[in-house]
Amino acid sequence: MIEPIGNQYIESRPVYSANSFGEEYKKKQRRHKTILDHLRVYCSCSTQKAKRIALSLFPIASWLPAYRLKEWLLSDIVSGISTGLVAVLQGLAFALLVNVPPSYGLYAAFFPVIVYFFLGTSRHISVGPFPVLSMMVGAVVSRLVPEESTTTLNANSSMGNSTLLLDEQKVLVAAAVTVLSGIIQLIMGALQFGFVVIYLSDSLISGFTTAAAVHVLVSQLKFMLQLPVPPHSDPFSLFKVLISVFSQIQDTNIADLVTSLIILLVVFVVKEINQRYKAKLPVPIPIELIMTVIATGVSYGFNFKERFNVTVVGEMPSGFQLPITPDVQTFQDTIGDCFGIAIVGFAVAYSVASVYSLKYDYPIDGNQELIALGLANILTGSFKGFAGSTALSRSGVQESTGGKSQIAGLLSAIIVLIAILAIGFLLEPLQKSVLAALALGNLKGMLMQFTEIGRLWRKDKYDCLIWIMTFIFAVVLGLGLGLAASVAFQLLTIVFRTQFPKCSSLAMIGRRNIYKNKKDYSEIYEPEGVKIFRCPSPIYFANINFFKQKLIDAVGFSPLRVLRKRNKALKKIRKLLKKGLLQVTPKGFICTVDSFQDSDDELDNNQIEELDQPVNTTDLPFQIDWNAELPLNIEVPKVNVHSLILDFSAVAFLDVSSMRGLKTMLQEFVRIKVDVYIVGTDDDFIEKLKRCEFFDEEVKDSIFFLTIHDAVLHILIKKDYSTSKFNSSQEKEKNTDFTINTNGGLRNRECQVPVETQF
Amino acid sequence: MIEPIGNQYIESRPVYSANSFGEEYKKKQRRHKTILDHLRVYCSCSTQKAKRIALSLFPIASWLPAYRLKEWLLSDIVSGISTGLVAVLQGLAFALLVNVPPSYGLYAAFFPVIVYFFLGTSRHISVGPFPVLSMMVGAVVSRLVPEESTTTLNANSSMGNSTLLLDEQKVLVAAAVTVLSGIIQLIMGALQFGFVVIYLSDSLISGFTTAAAVHVLVSQLKFMLQLPVPPHSDPFSLFKVLISVFSQIQDTNIADLVTSLIILLVVFVVKEINQRYKAKLPVPIPIELIMTVIATGVSYGFNFKERFNVTVVGEMPSGFQLPITPDVQTFQDTIGDCFGIAIVGFAVAYSVASVYSLKYDYPIDGNQELIALGLANILTGSFKGFAGSTALSRSGVQESTGGKSQIAGLLSAIIVLIAILAIGFLLEPLQKSVLAALALGNLKGMLMQFTEIGRLWRKDKYDCLIWIMTFIFAVVLGLGLGLAASVAFQLLTIVFRTQFPKCSSLAMIGRRNIYKNKKDYSEIYEPEGVKIFRCPSPIYFANINFFKQKLIDAVGFSPLRVLRKRNKALKKIRKLLKKGLLQVTPKGFICTVDSFQDSDDELDNNQIEELDQPVNTTDLPFQIDWNAELPLNIEVPKVNVHSLILDFSAVAFLDVSSMRGLKTMLQEFVRIKVDVYIVGTDDDFIEKLKRCEFFDEEVKDSIFFLTIHDAVLHILIKKDYSTSKFNSSQEKEKNTDFTINTNGGLRNRECQVPVETQF
Repeated sequence: MIEPIGNQYIESRPVYSANSFGEEYKKKQRRHKTILDHLRVYCSCSTQKAKRIALSLFPIASWLPAYRLKEWLLSDIVSGISTGLVAVLQGLAFALLVNVPPSYGLYAAFFPVIVYFFLGTSRHISVGPFPVLSMMVGAVVSRLVPEESTTTLNANSSMGNSTLLLDEQKVLVAAAVTVLSGIIQLIMGALQFGFVVIYLSDSLISGFTTAAAVHVLVSQLKFMLQLPVPPHSDPFSLFKVLISVFSQIQDTNIADLVTSLIILLVVFVVKEINQRYKAKLPVPIPIELIMTVIATGVSYGFNFKERFNVTVVGEMPSGFQLPITPDVQTFQDTIGDCFGIAIVGFAVAYSVASVYSLKYDYPIDGNQELIALGLANILTGSFKGFAGSTALSRSGVQESTGGKSQIAGLLSAIIVLIAILAIGFLLEPLQKSVLAALALGNLKGMLMQFTEIGRLWRKDKYDCLIWIMTFIFAVVLGLGLGLAASVAFQLLTIVFRTQFPKCSSLAMIGRRNIYKNKKDYSEIYEPEGVKIFRCPSPIYFANINFFKQKLIDAVGFSPLRVLRKRNKALKKIRKLLKKGLLQVTPKGFICTVDSFQDSDDELDNNQIEELDQPVNTTDLPFQIDWNAELPLNIEVPKVNVHSLILDFSAVAFLDVSSMRGLKTMLQEFVRIKVDVYIVGTDDDFIEKLKRCEFFDEEVKDSIFFLTIHDAVLHILIKKDYSTSKFNSSQEKEKNTDFTINTNGGLRNRECQVPVETQF
Repeated sequence: MIEPIGNQYIESRPVYSANSFGEEYKKKQRRHKTILDHLRVYCSCSTQKAKRIALSLFPIASWLPAYRLKEWLLSDIVSGISTGLVAVLQGLAFALLVNVPPSYGLYAAFFPVIVYFFLGTSRHISVGPFPVLSMMVGAVVSRLVPEESTTTLNANSSMGNSTLLLDEQKVLVAAAVTVLSGIIQLIMGALQFGFVVIYLSDSLISGFTTAAAVHVLVSQLKFMLQLPVPPHSDPFSLFKVLISVFSQIQDTNIADLVTSLIILLVVFVVKEINQRYKAKLPVPIPIELIMTVIATGVSYGFNFKERFNVTVVGEMPSGFQLPITPDVQTFQDTIGDCFGIAIVGFAVAYSVASVYSLKYDYPIDGNQELIALGLANILTGSFKGFAGSTALSRSGVQESTGGKSQIAGLLSAIIVLIAILAIGFLLEPLQKSVLAALALGNLKGMLMQFTEIGRLWRKDKYDCLIWIMTFIFAVVLGLGLGLAASVAFQLLTIVFRTQFPKCSSLAMIGRRNIYKNKKDYSEIYEPEGVKIFRCPSPIYFANINFFKQKLIDAVGFSPLRVLRKRNKALKKIRKLLKKGLLQVTPKGFICTVDSFQDSDDELDNNQIEELDQPVNTTDLPFQIDWNAELPLNIEVPKVNVHSLILDFSAVAFLDVSSMRGLKTMLQEFVRIKVDVYIVGTDDDFIEKLKRCEFFDEEVKDSIFFLTIHDAVLHILIKKDYSTSKFNSSQEKEKNTDFTINTNGGLRNRECQVPVETQF
């Protein structure tokens, strides 16, 4: 009855097993798509499809013709210039993270934008250097190019040949890593692997970026304090660097320390102001730009380099360098790291892009993004730049200053181009420690993510564990290997979550068709001899034994043990009957001896196997009631359960191992005359079991019922809980809140009959 | 009503939301055990517990006093002697797999049994050499001890110093690996890591042992053909060995080949007979023993060694060698392999032991098994043996010949001891190729497991994939690394299984309280404007976007897009109203202009964010019907869904990422006035969402209903599907099989009232 009456749930229908339901309501024949069908659709070819693919490879072909020149150009110009200035500074600062001379950072800020302009699908992100990626490249560079530990503070000022060579080597390694990462991204894009980002959960990204921030923080210390720190390779590189730094803390260049602390303080305060008065300020104060101009001026004016022996940006060669062919040997040594760089770079760019795509409601395409980033990195690497993605802060500038399309990106690249070609030399007196301080200024947000731990702990222990383990892995093992370990660990948590399901025994609540954990409620009713057991998770190889144990705990006995005890008892009884020591009367056994010592208690192999067979009493002239007293103190465990209902509504799948385990379990129950019912599964589940030959003479496919209530009603009917029997049980319960409305039931039946016939 | 009437499901109760149900049936306050509580129980100390632990560390203390001397001793003696003979032969044969001289195999067959006698919990398994483990140790030996490739066939017969030294080195490596594996097992046992075996599913073990059989097969070729094969390290070692063998196939020693083929044939045939006439034979024919005796006699009698230049077992030093301290350097180089050996060894022993423990109904303890095997391996390694576990075939002999306890094991060790001390020299003329053939004779069963592939493919694609990938990993990467890769892959499949859930739209079937996939049935009824959506798997970071997309597909629109379109339209209407171009009448809008060009279609940042806010029409003097025609061709997507029911009965858990995604989704639906209901969750689920601050002004905790039917009824009542309205819809359906029993409903209500008041 679907007609609502008051606030009543009224239902009257036949009790349905899956089979009887299937007979009454025929299923439609549906052809399910096979893998082949999917492949066919995927590989099918049409002019339209070819055109769509071509267009998707060059997104510019769709957005540029639709560009609204009048409305958008001005915003794009303003945004482009602001973003360009930020990009110049970030390029210089992040080059320090890569361990290459700052000027190379400008290349990294120029080339990717050009490629992305043609191939990218996001209109708002600013591609280019990203601190975490720079760090990851830097880690490889330190590993492959061993800096002589004798490098002193003066090395830079004297600009010896060795340093030049060393820098050149570092640049080459960084370039090779960048090209390889680009190639990996390109291949992943071509193979449509854009979906991998879904494996990076929020908790993992949060933990990972926090670890990256810690890495950045530690790596910048050497520039802030101006200490020569030899490179250390993972794992534990972070701790080794810290030890290096603190072991020579007395050699700190005070001028650099003071400058960077002042810059850091000012940047923090102004950023705070920007944040707080966001609404009132037309544009955020470009504090990085201001501080750079001031610092460069001061350093030049007071000749800091000579006076305090600080390290400065130094020579900024104007113009581009010739493209190079990356070294294949380097490829071999760095492929693991490059995978990490490729995936992190893509993941960051994609997640920032999807924020804007959601906000402005346009589609982005993960695979096309991979292709765009891949080609961008290949080009950048060829021109000695280093791997880029997108920096959230810079993309924020581009979008908040009004950028409408990648025209703004193109303009920002032109600003960078101007810096490369013309005005770069102006930055030569800038202290490296200032760049380091500016890089650190961006870390606050990432480091604040530590507060996530507490929040996650309250919400979800597993997610909290993912955060902590990701952080530890990334800090200890380094970012590349750490990422791999974290993803593996994270996937493991999905297994953990389902591995120890909270199985429970259910009971009817308040005599409704509602079944809940019987421990939680007091007004429960359990039909006598019926056990209802719920498993709230998929069952598979790793938890089938756990499930079995929980089921045994719930019913209170092991069916296999009961079966064997019964078979043993039966053997004994047969022997006694044969010897004439036992007689059977309608009232039970009459034993003519007081005790009987079984001559051979030991069983050989075949006999052991017999014990696992169904209890066969067909040759006996009577039925044995196993729960009654047996003669001669033959002891068999009492079984007070005649029906077991397994609620499988949350069992999303079974694998082959669990199917075998479940089958054995069900068989054992059936052999000791406990009826098993499975309820709440969907049709596919039953189909699959049939396909796997799950059913046989003992475990039949008639055990499926639609709901727990259907199964319970079926059991009550089958076991003939007649009204009279019910009334007597009702007597016992008079003290409780329950009374059973025996008449209501009858009247209900009266009401019901016409309904049923109408259907 | 729980009283069964005919075969009818009759129910009448209030419609329950989770909240109203909670009010009517109070939940008991239950204190759930925290991690701390579990720890406290685990760490608590009592005399009883201490005694139990002490006893569990020395299982012999409990089973030896209960030993039934009279009944069991004879069986144990018979069994012990048979097993001992098999153990001698297997020890010699498996030593070839380890690449050490055969005599060391006898040590491997002696020491573990002694330790296991005192510490093991299984009464039936025969510990000692196991082919797969021997292979794994052998792989490490080949890697670490590079055999001079100049070793010729004559090297053995001339017994040069270099060969002696080489053999000595191999023995030392094998011993070190064995000790380290033992240490790992011991530590795992002490840390209660016995549960790791559950991660080895049936499919994985089947694929892995098949791969091991292939490895054994290939490794024995060199002994059967008597070819010098240089060792090859993983990965791809198997293919490299094959290439080595076939590139020098012309140098095959025909005598060895013929001997081994004959032996192999005879063994196969007799084993087949043993299998087929199992029931009729008192004991299986000990064909290996017979063949060994014959082969040794023939080889000695005809002086095969001199005549055909075959390789023989050679010198069998009698007595034991002095114990050694294993090399720590070797530990470092082999720790990865040792992990594999430790786990595989334990897994095999445990699985064989659990077969017997189930059969004879006694408990075994995984952690104690680990400790026993660990100490056994440490002792064996110290005396230059190699890692052992249990061979299924040998345990089979021990059990089938009547072994009742580890007394049989002890006796088998004594037989091995006799071979070591006294009669070993008798085996000196035995050809190594005979031993190789005997080892291969045991592989048939394992190789037959290839047929599993087809069976698994029909049953479960994922399990089939696990089998194939495990096999490929173990063959290509080697057994140790392959096992690790397989376990990782296997755990990934659990993620895959839940990652692309088969979400479906449900509908009422046959107007019952039954809801199934609407595509499957024809007699469906979907209340107008109500969508019922089921997700059949947990929702977490890797499938939340998939879930969202499927939900959008199912309802037919993206709520966010609709929300934005509505807000945009509202802006336009407001503007028109303000300019007086639009008038509102009770019948709708009247527009006084024909067209209106919005001056500024562009929105700045804040306005974009406004679009995501709930549609606010409180300042307007009328309500807008978004599904009606709007003036001036303002277009807003039509939404024909007013209520969405999410069936979460199979959603076992949500993680933090998915919770955030779900919340956003629900919010968007609520903001476009689609009521969302979640049904079928258990109480813990709701508790968790509350703890995670999931609920707010928009997404309320009143969205939970007990069942789909409760939610549907609630919606029908809320949306006032009055009887009259229903009747009219009924008119339309007259051609169908349905008629709605309007009177029945009323009568039902009459019946129901007294029932309700009684409860």
